[in-house]
Amino acid sequence: MSLTDEQQGEIFEARKQAASTKRPTVPALETILYEAIPVLDHGFIRVVDYMGDDASVVQAARVSYGRGTKKVQEDRGLINYLMRHHHTTPFEMAEIKLHVKLPIFVARQWVRHRTANINEYSARYSILDKEFYIPAAEHLAAQSNVNRQGRGTVLEGEEAAAVLGLLKQDAEVAYKHYLEMLNQDEDGQTLRDDRSGLARELARMDLSLNFYTQWYWKIDLHNLMGFLRLRADAHAQLEIRAYADKMLDILKAWVPISYDAFVEHRLNSVTLSATAIQVVKDALSGKTVSQKQSKLSQREWAELVSVFGVLNGEFHD
Amino acid sequence: MSLTDEQQGEIFEARKQAASTKRPTVPALETILYEAIPVLDHGFIRVVDYMGDDASVVQAARVSYGRGTKKVQEDRGLINYLMRHHHTTPFEMAEIKLHVKLPIFVARQWVRHRTANINEYSARYSILDKEFYIPAAEHLAAQSNVNRQGRGTVLEGEEAAAVLGLLKQDAEVAYKHYLEMLNQDEDGQTLRDDRSGLARELARMDLSLNFYTQWYWKIDLHNLMGFLRLRADAHAQLEIRAYADKMLDILKAWVPISYDAFVEHRLNSVTLSATAIQVVKDALSGKTVSQKQSKLSQREWAELVSVFGVLNGEFHD
Amino acid sequence: MSLTDEQQGEIFEARKQAASTKRPTVPALETILYEAIPVLDHGFIRVVDYMGDDASVVQAARVSYGRGTKKVQEDRGLINYLMRHHHTTPFEMAEIKLHVKLPIFVARQWVRHRTANINEYSARYSILDKEFYIPAAEHLAAQSNVNRQGRGTVLEGEEAAAVLGLLKQDAEVAYKHYLEMLNQDEDGQTLRDDRSGLARELARMDLSLNFYTQWYWKIDLHNLMGFLRLRADAHAQLEIRAYADKMLDILKAWVPISYDAFVEHRLNSVTLSATAIQVVKDALSGKTVSQKQSKLSQREWAELVSVFGVLNGEFHD
Amino acid sequence: MSLTDEQQGEIFEARKQAASTKRPTVPALETILYEAIPVLDHGFIRVVDYMGDDASVVQAARVSYGRGTKKVQEDRGLINYLMRHHHTTPFEMAEIKLHVKLPIFVARQWVRHRTANINEYSARYSILDKEFYIPAAEHLAAQSNVNRQGRGTVLEGEEAAAVLGLLKQDAEVAYKHYLEMLNQDEDGQTLRDDRSGLARELARMDLSLNFYTQWYWKIDLHNLMGFLRLRADAHAQLEIRAYADKMLDILKAWVPISYDAFVEHRLNSVTLSATAIQVVKDALSGKTVSQKQSKLSQREWAELVSVFGVLNGEFHD
Repeated sequence: MSLTDEQQGEIFEARKQAASTKRPTVPALETILYEAIPVLDHGFIRVVDYMGDDASVVQAARVSYGRGTKKVQEDRGLINYLMRHHHTTPFEMAEIKLHVKLPIFVARQWVRHRTANINEYSARYSILDKEFYIPAAEHLAAQSNVNRQGRGTVLEGEEAAAVLGLLKQDAEVAYKHYLEMLNQDEDGQTLRDDRSGLARELARMDLSLNFYTQWYWKIDLHNLMGFLRLRADAHAQLEIRAYADKMLDILKAWVPISYDAFVEHRLNSVTLSATAIQVVKDALSGKTVSQKQSKLSQREWAELVSVFGVLNGEFHD
Repeated sequence: MSLTDEQQGEIFEARKQAASTKRPTVPALETILYEAIPVLDHGFIRVVDYMGDDASVVQAARVSYGRGTKKVQEDRGLINYLMRHHHTTPFEMAEIKLHVKLPIFVARQWVRHRTANINEYSARYSILDKEFYIPAAEHLAAQSNVNRQGRGTVLEGEEAAAVLGLLKQDAEVAYKHYLEMLNQDEDGQTLRDDRSGLARELARMDLSLNFYTQWYWKIDLHNLMGFLRLRADAHAQLEIRAYADKMLDILKAWVPISYDAFVEHRLNSVTLSATAIQVVKDALSGKTVSQKQSKLSQREWAELVSVFGVLNGEFHD
Repeated sequence: MSLTDEQQGEIFEARKQAASTKRPTVPALETILYEAIPVLDHGFIRVVDYMGDDASVVQAARVSYGRGTKKVQEDRGLINYLMRHHHTTPFEMAEIKLHVKLPIFVARQWVRHRTANINEYSARYSILDKEFYIPAAEHLAAQSNVNRQGRGTVLEGEEAAAVLGLLKQDAEVAYKHYLEMLNQDEDGQTLRDDRSGLARELARMDLSLNFYTQWYWKIDLHNLMGFLRLRADAHAQLEIRAYADKMLDILKAWVPISYDAFVEHRLNSVTLSATAIQVVKDALSGKTVSQKQSKLSQREWAELVSVFGVLNGEFHD
Repeated sequence: MSLTDEQQGEIFEARKQAASTKRPTVPALETILYEAIPVLDHGFIRVVDYMGDDASVVQAARVSYGRGTKKVQEDRGLINYLMRHHHTTPFEMAEIKLHVKLPIFVARQWVRHRTANINEYSARYSILDKEFYIPAAEHLAAQSNVNRQGRGTVLEGEEAAAVLGLLKQDAEVAYKHYLEMLNQDEDGQTLRDDRSGLARELARMDLSLNFYTQWYWKIDLHNLMGFLRLRADAHAQLEIRAYADKMLDILKAWVPISYDAFVEHRLNSVTLSATAIQVVKDALSGKTVSQKQSKLSQREWAELVSVFGVLNGEFHD
């Protein structure tokens, strides 16, 4: 992450402002407000604004005239109850706004979550910075042999070097040609007076998908947890997970009780199918169970074993 | 509007809280935060929380690191530009949360706006108050003769009295029977020990559509303006318009620049069809225009005349 | 359910039409297309149109040029995989449109599902029929003692009779007064020449929440399953569940493979929290488990026992 | 557009299927169903499925038991009325599904329309084809001098040749390196046995934004018209407008009456602000009007002139 002096100055000014408010306020979030939390090699997440806190969830659930909260323990119980029973509307009553800098291929996954508001930096209107994502060596993985859409072992030696070389070189060349087509240098000066410069909306198509873009992104607490459930998951691509991991920290600072309920009932929960329930019931009652008899697929069986482990020898295939 | 002492106490406590925040803060909205603004005979609107201000729209449009605002005049120009060209995403970056008490038939129109968050008081869980809407005498109108879904002249004399009598009497009886079926009195005491009391989720069905319900309602600035465009309009039912009118005041206090742009480019604007454009062009160039030649329907023609008035005799039919 | 001759005639005409199409077609759904399936005492569901079938889910998941299906067994495996891993977008690619007649208090729960399209019969524009919901004797239940928002035992004897009497009488009176205020009789004839008749948009507020309304409702397969997961559930109010149950039949006729996957992985599945997973793991490995040691709440513990039953005595509290 | 034999075979098979249906059917759309309509150099749009027709809009507006249509002229009048008064829900009752092949930078604009369903070809799972967009010579434009986000004059001579050369060369190199990193050739054969091949989800980031992706896209008629209003507009980037133009043809074939209403009341309409209304009123009543007196900005004034033209000299600045 490399902020310009001007950008750091703007953040500094924003962080200085202070006003008195009657609104719910979260000191832990105020502490990091506007600050850029680094992600990947050039990306960041900044909390730019927020609305509500854990008490806002309780307040909405009770449709109360005041804050609606009672004892901490009661509030915690209510939030857990709402989470467990998918009473999602009270969690929609808190909102957060982030400024995110992220590679375009990550942005393309991100927008699949449609229940959010986005304002993206326009490359029709402005010129993109020379910033592109190059994976750290330890993240440069081979295609997985078992998962059609995942990574396997880390690339090593000459192959890793070759890949890194190509990624860097191609992005460098792309950016060089981008400016050349725009007919300007890195300082925005015209390169050749006998040229007009290609329209920005066209020139950008030469850039590769690892270039960084940025946007303002606003989402309510319920949908944020929906995002994190999928993107902080082991099946998510490592690069978007890097953002989701930082957002988990933000979630914890913002709404610690909802965070706990989310971890307990979503992130670390497991859903058993009707057939899997029967397998576990049989195992619990001492019956011998096996994949073949269970009607579970091999993959489902493997997932069940990964959750509950081996038991008395009967749980094996 | 009749708040209980307990409710007023809760509001009083909420209004006392004060904290320092780095977030954008709107003093004009802080002044009325949590207060119940009366609407109709028992309803209200309370601003319960908000996020962002006019500068937040500018900030998002510029994807800036700080507040993103420049001179007031430049910000105003940008906001007008965004509004005129339907660049709606920056207006999605501010959010407001209201607590609303409203008759059920109004609530049924209100929920047609789906891009908002709602938490309604549950009549499965709790018992509704004895509060129902009775129109003021001057709003008791006959069916319109020209508009299948509108009101005509105000009812008078005996007919008005008869209608008001029926509305009041039926609501009184409905609430009496509601409690009777629940087997409790207005203080929540059991009526008859030999009865169980009907489930709340069933008993409520005896109440009429003018009983009041209440909810928390959260919406972004863009969708709020969409709501107001339709519901502060002369075609909207008077009862929901009463709420929309109060919300226009709230909008003006919250985001005065966006409010001006909204009034100029939405609320008081008019959209001309391709055919209507041609009529106006012809009139402007001195040609004689008439409804028959124009291919506009009589209704469209009448609307055009109501906007631009009579001109040199040519604009008539 | 009581359709007029005219309505039956319209349905008959619609059912007669036949055309050749290249689109995916589901014979089992064509059989019941347009027909009114009765629900409650006067309600119904009619399948009015549909788009896609099980193969459409597969086709979208494979982004194929043709139908995209392979062997039935492979398609079934893919659909199960998508369902288990919450790959929801392919299920959004099939769509169904229903015409539903339902009591207003059910309609109010129904609209909480916002990701659907609704066109409701307008009581501003038209006059509602004299049809209201009266629960069958076996559904007239007392308030639950254990669940704040549920039903307990069935009401009996004098209390049941009293409740039914009130419900019927109040609805009859409400409709009588509704017409009186509109100044017309059941045949639409003017009652008194010296009266104007109250505007329809006002008169309707005297009707109670058990009156029937009707609407066109369109939803995609993914969101339909989301609706059914919540509304075909034992916690849903019996009246909306009556509709959900019929919709499960429709779902089965329309997309039998997706239906099976839905039942297996959603409707009859169970989600275990992180703590509950540990309890089951301990039980499976032969440890003694109890509610107190488990950190589960009594309610959570009870739910766990209801799923897996008693095991070796250790699972008890 | 270059379909493989296999793809053409799949389309051929799909087009052969025929079934009898009671659903609304649109012969003009059946004729082109599944066929690939070329857009840009390698893209296409295929109508893959549809639900409803013009009569479905009428049917929903009338909440009818049959098709709900009356005389063609009445239906046309109703559809125009709905369109003019923003009664949008009946237009949500028809749905269309497209298979689209489009450059990634176009796809990034396209997804800003969130009220639609998308299933995109996964470059985590599969390998992208060697297809990238190169603008035709006549579309290779310079940055506009008057519009920060638009195109100006067409590039010519040496500069045009240089730009085209860079775009082609960079895309060729990117794809070559993409395969090299994947460690395979164009036929999917392993390049070097001593290499593992980079994970597909990483290798794709080297491709530039003009590479083609593809997706299934489903949208209702109301939101489709919302898309077209913005994307068939002169301010939209030419490349996405190329798709919008083809979709206008599809719209016309599918729902000709709604199409006419859309063109009349949306596409070729103009919205006048409160201030602009006053200017036109003044001009119509013979007053002299000028930009300075009008309080319109220069840009707004210019737009007004572009709509209504010059009139009696008074309309000038």
